[in-house]
Amino acid sequence: MTTTAGPATDARPAPRRGARSVLVLVTLVVACLAVGAVGGLSTQGAVDGWYADAQKVPWNPPNWVFGPAWTVLYVLMAVAAWRVWRVGGLAHARPALLLWVAQLSLNAAWTPIFFSGSLVWVALVVIVALEAVLVATAVAFWRHDRLASWLLGPYMTWVAFATTLNVGIGVLN
Amino acid sequence: MTTTAGPATDARPAPRRGARSVLVLVTLVVACLAVGAVGGLSTQGAVDGWYADAQKVPWNPPNWVFGPAWTVLYVLMAVAAWRVWRVGGLAHARPALLLWVAQLSLNAAWTPIFFSGSLVWVALVVIVALEAVLVATAVAFWRHDRLASWLLGPYMTWVAFATTLNVGIGVLN
Repeated sequence: MTTTAGPATDARPAPRRGARSVLVLVTLVVACLAVGAVGGLSTQGAVDGWYADAQKVPWNPPNWVFGPAWTVLYVLMAVAAWRVWRVGGLAHARPALLLWVAQLSLNAAWTPIFFSGSLVWVALVVIVALEAVLVATAVAFWRHDRLASWLLGPYMTWVAFATTLNVGIGVLN
Repeated sequence: MTTTAGPATDARPAPRRGARSVLVLVTLVVACLAVGAVGGLSTQGAVDGWYADAQKVPWNPPNWVFGPAWTVLYVLMAVAAWRVWRVGGLAHARPALLLWVAQLSLNAAWTPIFFSGSLVWVALVVIVALEAVLVATAVAFWRHDRLASWLLGPYMTWVAFATTLNVGIGVLN
């Protein structure tokens, strides 16, 4: 009957701490960066091929922007999931964390679909679904940890921006 | 200058054999079944909750059908990817295998999105994108290994069938 952490007035379970918590954080960061690495692989060929030659919207950033931007976003989404797991616990936060898995899966799917070159409109459908699931994830995260929702903010903003780039590639080519 | 396998008139690289090949096959099967396991987790709650109560189309199978069906389909898709890797090699077959990664990611995304209960129409968008990417994957597999394309046949058929179930849940509720 000892309270190990957190305000005594809070009915939620105490946040997980210690080695297990660090392990979960590292696993989540590695998993997200792995998704990014496979995504990076899938751009090979296209970046010096059809994508280089494609007409783009005027606000399409240069290639070097995407690597650092996505690296930051993958770390942020991993930290967000970790915080929700830490305060909510797997059983309690399962629906929220499954939506997070769904958004990561859609994220993993989008890059090879888009850079395949012939499925740009399918990629657009996927990125719109990604944004919808991201909003649902942020809403589900809110009641577990508000900061976790905010951590998804830059990601949602970037995906909305990337959607305009995807539309641009589709329309202009 | 020895030919280890395959007809001498075939310019493609000889299929990979031995321990590494078995390891790749096992890894692919485990990865696909892991996607299925996370998917199964995401149905918890819903299967005895909103999904049990939902109006369904008359051809919606009973719950016990889905586990065995998906287990077979995950093994088939793993074997298909393995055969393409084996005859094509990673460098040569990268575009085809990345489409395969994309379809697996969409597959991973669909289940938690659908069973979240509130994103049934987003799930429909995802499963339609999944079927499109599956067709692209089968087309890309064809030139590496025709059997690999055929192995995706039952999966494509099931996804088309599952799409009708998804539409049914959306329209009837």
